[in-house]
Amino acid sequence: MKDPAATVMERIEALGHVSDDATCLTRTFCSPAMRRANGLVGSWMRKAGLEVREDAIGNVIGHYPGATPHCKVLLLGSHLDTVRNAGKFDGPLGVIMAIACVEHLRGKRLRLPFAIEVCGFADEEGVRYQSACLGSRAVAGLLDDMDLRRTDGRGVSMVDAIRHFGGQPARMKQARFDADRLLGYVEAHIEQGPVLEEENMAVGIVTAIAGQSRYQFTFTGRAGHAGTTPMRLRRDALCAAAEFILAVEGYAARKAGLVATVGQIQAAPNASNVIPGTVILTLDVRHQIDSIRLTAGVQLQKLARQIAAARRVKVSSQLVQQTPSVACASKLSSLLERATKIHQSRIIRLPSGAGHDAAILAGITPAAILFIRCKGGISHHPNESASRHDVRIALAVLNDFLRLLASEYGRF
Amino acid sequence: MKDPAATVMERIEALGHVSDDATCLTRTFCSPAMRRANGLVGSWMRKAGLEVREDAIGNVIGHYPGATPHCKVLLLGSHLDTVRNAGKFDGPLGVIMAIACVEHLRGKRLRLPFAIEVCGFADEEGVRYQSACLGSRAVAGLLDDMDLRRTDGRGVSMVDAIRHFGGQPARMKQARFDADRLLGYVEAHIEQGPVLEEENMAVGIVTAIAGQSRYQFTFTGRAGHAGTTPMRLRRDALCAAAEFILAVEGYAARKAGLVATVGQIQAAPNASNVIPGTVILTLDVRHQIDSIRLTAGVQLQKLARQIAAARRVKVSSQLVQQTPSVACASKLSSLLERATKIHQSRIIRLPSGAGHDAAILAGITPAAILFIRCKGGISHHPNESASRHDVRIALAVLNDFLRLLASEYGRF
Repeated sequence: MKDPAATVMERIEALGHVSDDATCLTRTFCSPAMRRANGLVGSWMRKAGLEVREDAIGNVIGHYPGATPHCKVLLLGSHLDTVRNAGKFDGPLGVIMAIACVEHLRGKRLRLPFAIEVCGFADEEGVRYQSACLGSRAVAGLLDDMDLRRTDGRGVSMVDAIRHFGGQPARMKQARFDADRLLGYVEAHIEQGPVLEEENMAVGIVTAIAGQSRYQFTFTGRAGHAGTTPMRLRRDALCAAAEFILAVEGYAARKAGLVATVGQIQAAPNASNVIPGTVILTLDVRHQIDSIRLTAGVQLQKLARQIAAARRVKVSSQLVQQTPSVACASKLSSLLERATKIHQSRIIRLPSGAGHDAAILAGITPAAILFIRCKGGISHHPNESASRHDVRIALAVLNDFLRLLASEYGRF
Repeated sequence: MKDPAATVMERIEALGHVSDDATCLTRTFCSPAMRRANGLVGSWMRKAGLEVREDAIGNVIGHYPGATPHCKVLLLGSHLDTVRNAGKFDGPLGVIMAIACVEHLRGKRLRLPFAIEVCGFADEEGVRYQSACLGSRAVAGLLDDMDLRRTDGRGVSMVDAIRHFGGQPARMKQARFDADRLLGYVEAHIEQGPVLEEENMAVGIVTAIAGQSRYQFTFTGRAGHAGTTPMRLRRDALCAAAEFILAVEGYAARKAGLVATVGQIQAAPNASNVIPGTVILTLDVRHQIDSIRLTAGVQLQKLARQIAAARRVKVSSQLVQQTPSVACASKLSSLLERATKIHQSRIIRLPSGAGHDAAILAGITPAAILFIRCKGGISHHPNESASRHDVRIALAVLNDFLRLLASEYGRF
């Protein structure tokens, strides 16, 4: 019998060629490539014994019945859309592995005390409408009319895009899952970070999806001639910003699990012979515990003010965006851990710093995430990759997770 | 009798309206505004008793004879061109004050043992041909055919521009002063920095025009997801750059007279949710003593390598440009100091971090510079200004300087 991990890798490769762009992988919401992707994924689902449907927004969903007619439903899956110039694994891996799990069950002619529905969400990256997780929000009942009226870069409304794709925007409410029937949602996803590689482990269990605060800081000093202004008379906005950048780094390094990043910086007048008068920079702070993130935001703003004041520089900051943390369901996660113990010497628990469909599904059902090691932590890039070895372990973990969940279903 | 400082201020104001741009002051080499400026300055020169000529490149030069026919010549002056959107003082002040000195001599019917030639140089800023000090280089014999073949932004060659202006590019060699006949060159110029304001003194004596080294540094770390990459696994190019920026500031602060500036910075990919993978920045280092500047360059490159290595970040650097320091002539400077002592409680000696015509003239004759306080250290900006009070003191210093030079001429 063929190695199921090899099949997963072949399908990742095949789906990696389904793109709206001839020169790279880009597959956005309701695009022609997404139409072909849904067709391909649907064919794999059918081959695995899943009954395939497409919901009102264009999510492709495969149903594998449980042992009894009205049993609960466990959702497995991830998203099928990509960023621009994407890698092949972010999203599709979770859908293709879920199909492999069902193939495994069918191969053993097993019915579980719950049904399985494999979801290939139509949008998570939010590239086309600058609004993320459209697919999972539709099934969670969180997509509203305001979302549907959004227009893309070419002025096409979401309603028209969905209709053109073959969806039914008017029946969006019917895409919503009945929360009472759901057992939970489990998503397999590449880590998109370097922790598992650093730990030399194939898989890890996500504790929570970190909350995020994004700020913009403006340091205002005094521009001046680089040749004629002595050091002691300067009010250099870039030196103040540099001190702040290091303060941010130092603060985050001292708080376990906290990440804080100055990703964007712009100096003015930005000329080699002029002392920078103004520097604008961004600060991105994330932690799985909201209070730690919020405290970090307050403390870093305070540090910025102290650094600026000591240099006779002004600083202002504003909160641009923030989202709270979403905890993963402990019962599902502990079953994932037990399954992991069978196949891996150590359990790695880690937060997810990036958003996922699971964060949306967590609003209506217990949700958990299994992370799979990705090379160099690289994601959202053509070099994104996960190894067949790790996919094999992840599949074994998911299969055992389903077995454990089935055997403990009465107590669950 | 009218306050000569008031006349200087009126003339500064009048010349400030002679612009190639209706909305701001911009007067570039061989432009229509420069034609009008030479006319206006020439008329003031004639009024002061100077015999006016325009040399091959378009410098306007006024001759005030000495006591004897073949005596030596002391040059006084500065430049008449400006940067774009300029202030009114940078350049013209030195020319207009020199005319006022001659007016003062003529008012007293004084002939000195040397002639005076007031020079209004046609180009110092180098805006039009991206090559600075064309006027003083012409009189120093340092302008060559390669310079004359340069073209401006509209494709007009320097030869054509000079010819159209009324100059004589073919006779450029005749613009060269006979070094043997020169006694020296003295330039009055706004400081373009904040030192005199900080010291609360009207004038200062320039010790040297600082040498300059300009470098470009590239820090290469590893871009990564701001949410999924723990602090300890980062190779953040911007954090490395920040540490370097502070190291530069600290190094310069510890070396008297050294200025070092990171003026330009560019991060990539420069997105708020991505750890910067690459940062390119400029470093400008200046000191009046070349060995200190050169050592600083070596040490700062070493610091950059140490900072980068400790962070597993790569760094490369290249020297983009360097010019050596030019010392001011001690005999002329000490006479300026003696004259200053008469009118000001303290002598301020300071290097010039910016370039000046004096640095070119120093190649053929002893040269000295008197700095005049400017408000807030602001220059190359419409807000550039010097007060009538300070101009009055500077005029008195220059007048006494000429008196002292005349009285000590035999020993000089």
